Amino acid sequence: MMKKKHKQTRFPKRLNIRTGKIEMSHGSGGRAMSQLIEELFQHAFANPYLLQKNDQAALPVEKGTIALTTDSFVINPLFFPGGNIGSLAVHGTVNDLAMSGAEPQYLSAGFILEEGFPLSDLEKIIESMAEVAQDAGVEIVTGDTKVVHRGQADGVYINTSGIGVIPANIHISAERANPGDAILISGPIGDHGIAVMAEREGLSYSTSLVSDVASLNGLVKSMVNTVKDIHVLRDLTRGGLAAAMNEISTTARVGMLIEESAIPVRPEVQAACEILGYDPLHVANEGKLIAICPSDSAEILLETMINHPLGAQSAIIGKVIEDDHSFVEMNTELGGRRLVDWISGDQLPRIC
Amino acid sequence: MMKKKHKQTRFPKRLNIRTGKIEMSHGSGGRAMSQLIEELFQHAFANPYLLQKNDQAALPVEKGTIALTTDSFVINPLFFPGGNIGSLAVHGTVNDLAMSGAEPQYLSAGFILEEGFPLSDLEKIIESMAEVAQDAGVEIVTGDTKVVHRGQADGVYINTSGIGVIPANIHISAERANPGDAILISGPIGDHGIAVMAEREGLSYSTSLVSDVASLNGLVKSMVNTVKDIHVLRDLTRGGLAAAMNEISTTARVGMLIEESAIPVRPEVQAACEILGYDPLHVANEGKLIAICPSDSAEILLETMINHPLGAQSAIIGKVIEDDHSFVEMNTELGGRRLVDWISGDQLPRIC
Repeated sequence: MMKKKHKQTRFPKRLNIRTGKIEMSHGSGGRAMSQLIEELFQHAFANPYLLQKNDQAALPVEKGTIALTTDSFVINPLFFPGGNIGSLAVHGTVNDLAMSGAEPQYLSAGFILEEGFPLSDLEKIIESMAEVAQDAGVEIVTGDTKVVHRGQADGVYINTSGIGVIPANIHISAERANPGDAILISGPIGDHGIAVMAEREGLSYSTSLVSDVASLNGLVKSMVNTVKDIHVLRDLTRGGLAAAMNEISTTARVGMLIEESAIPVRPEVQAACEILGYDPLHVANEGKLIAICPSDSAEILLETMINHPLGAQSAIIGKVIEDDHSFVEMNTELGGRRLVDWISGDQLPRIC
Repeated sequence: MMKKKHKQTRFPKRLNIRTGKIEMSHGSGGRAMSQLIEELFQHAFANPYLLQKNDQAALPVEKGTIALTTDSFVINPLFFPGGNIGSLAVHGTVNDLAMSGAEPQYLSAGFILEEGFPLSDLEKIIESMAEVAQDAGVEIVTGDTKVVHRGQADGVYINTSGIGVIPANIHISAERANPGDAILISGPIGDHGIAVMAEREGLSYSTSLVSDVASLNGLVKSMVNTVKDIHVLRDLTRGGLAAAMNEISTTARVGMLIEESAIPVRPEVQAACEILGYDPLHVANEGKLIAICPSDSAEILLETMINHPLGAQSAIIGKVIEDDHSFVEMNTELGGRRLVDWISGDQLPRIC
C-alpha cells in the first residue's frame, strides 16, 4: 500500500508550462526541482554530458591550453528586439571565449529565478539558449537552479560559464597591443545598447533597430586562420568601444589613436544617442569586436572580416601608439582631437 | 591642459571600503567598475591568470578528462556561524568537482551585487573566498561583476564555476550505483542547514552550532587513492541526504536501504529539527558526502575516511538494492521500515 501511494506522487503530472509559475519549491532540492530540471533544462539542452545527471560534467580534453570564462546576465527587459536574456547569455560567453582565439566547446548555465516567474517565459529563454548553443557549436553540459522570494531578483538572472580550446600558436591577450599595431572593428557600434534602451523606455525607434547579439566564434576562426599573429581581440560589451580600448591600453601600457570618421555607426543609433544623450562609443554591443594586429597584416585581416557575414561592415579605425598615460584619443570628424574616456556614472544600467 | 585634467580623474582615490557602498556605476563598464575589480577582486585573488586582465583565463591542460561545474549561491543570511556566502561559494564548487574524483584547479567567480551593498561586507566575502581557495588549492582565475538596483537582489549573489582534472582510471558517476554496493557517509548530517536557519530565525542554539561548510577535495583524494573503484560520490547539499540518495537511485535505477541507527546526527541538530519540524534527512550539509562502493571495499574505505579530519565520524549506513521503483527505504530505530522521500514543498529556502 505504501509503495502504491508513493508511486502516485513520485511521478507527478507534467509541469504546466502554459500558466505555471516558479515556486520556492522549484529551488528546494526536492521533487519539484528535479521535475523542473528534467522537463525544461534536460529536455532542451539534451546531450550525453548533461544526462550523466551528476553535479558536474566529465569532459575529454587534449593537452594544450583552454580558456575559462564566466558572465552573469541581468539584462532588463528580459526580451528585447533581436534576442532575450537566454540567447544573450550563450552568445556572450561564446564571445568571451572566442576573444582568446579559443574554439568554444562547453558551457554551464546557472539560473537565479524569482518566485512567480512564468514557466512559459522560462521555456522561451531556455529554448533560445539551446538554439543559440547549437548554432555556435557548443553544448550546455551542467547547470544549477536557485529560487529566491518575490522582490529578491527581477524575473531571472543567468550565469553562463564556459571553456574552449585555444589552438596551438595562438596567443591573443590584451598586453600584446604594440605601438604601430592597427585597430580594426567588425561593424557598426551601439546597436545592442540602443535596442535594449529603446525597448525598456518604450521609444518609437524600437521597431527598426535590433540588437546585434551574435556568436562571433565563426568570425574569429576565419580571422585566426588568416592572420596567426593577431595580438588582441575584445568584444565591445558593457562600456562599449571606449571601455574596451581603455582596458587594453591600460593593460598594455600603450596609447591609441582612432579616427571618428572610420567608426561605423548606424544613422538610427546616432539619432537615438543624440536624443538620449549617449555617446555611441560608450554603448554596449553584443556582436562586435575590435582586433589589434601588426599593421602589415591589417589589410588581409580586414578583407577576411568583410568576407564574413558578421563582419561585412568592418573597418580599420586607428592604431596603437606609444603613450605612458595610456590615453585613447580620437581625431574627430570636425578636425579636432579629443580624449575617449571610460563611460562615467551609471548610464545604461542592466544592459547585459 | 586636457591631458592634465584627465589625469586627475583617471587615477581616482582608492575605494572607501569602510563606509562605501555599491553604486550602479560599479556595474557600468566604466572606471568605477574597473576600480572595484582592481582594488577588491584582483587584489584578493591575485594570480597570473587573473592578472592577464582578459575576459577569460588561458589555462594549461594535459590530455585527459576534466570536470566542469557551476553553482549560484543565494544564501540568506550572507554571514552565518562557520562561514559566509563567499566561503560557501568556493567550498561548494570545489566539492561539486571533487564528487567526480577530480582535483579542483581553477574557479570563476560571478557577482550580482545590489545597489547599496556595503563595500566592507563585500571585502569580507572576497577575503573569505581567497582564503578558502588557497586552502583548497584552487585559483580564482576569471570573474564578472554586475550591479542591479535596490530591491532587485538581496545583497549579493555569487556564481562560482570551476574545472578540475579527473585522474585516469577514475570513473565516478551516479549511474554506477550497483545492487550490493555499500553506502558510506562522512559524518553527522544537518549541521549547515540548522546553523543557517537558526541564525536566520534568531534562535538560541545558534551559539553552539556551526555550519559544516568545508572543502572535501582532500578527503576525496585520500579515498580514491585507497579505493580506485568508488562508484558514486555525492555531497549532501540542498535536499540533504534524502535528495542525494533519491537522485542517485533514480539515475541508476536501483533502490537503497539504509539504517536509521547508523546515520550520525548531532543531538543539537536533532533537537532543532524536532522544534522546527524538519527531518534531518532533508537538511542541507556543505561538508558531507556519501560514497557508494563495492561491499568488499567498504571497510577499507571507511577506515580511510575516519582517518581524515573531515571524515572522523564516518559510517556505513546501508546498501544499494535492486528495485525497479528506485525507492529509498530506511529501517527505523523503532524497528519499522519507511520510505525516505525527497523533501517536499518549500522548506528551507535559500540555504545555499
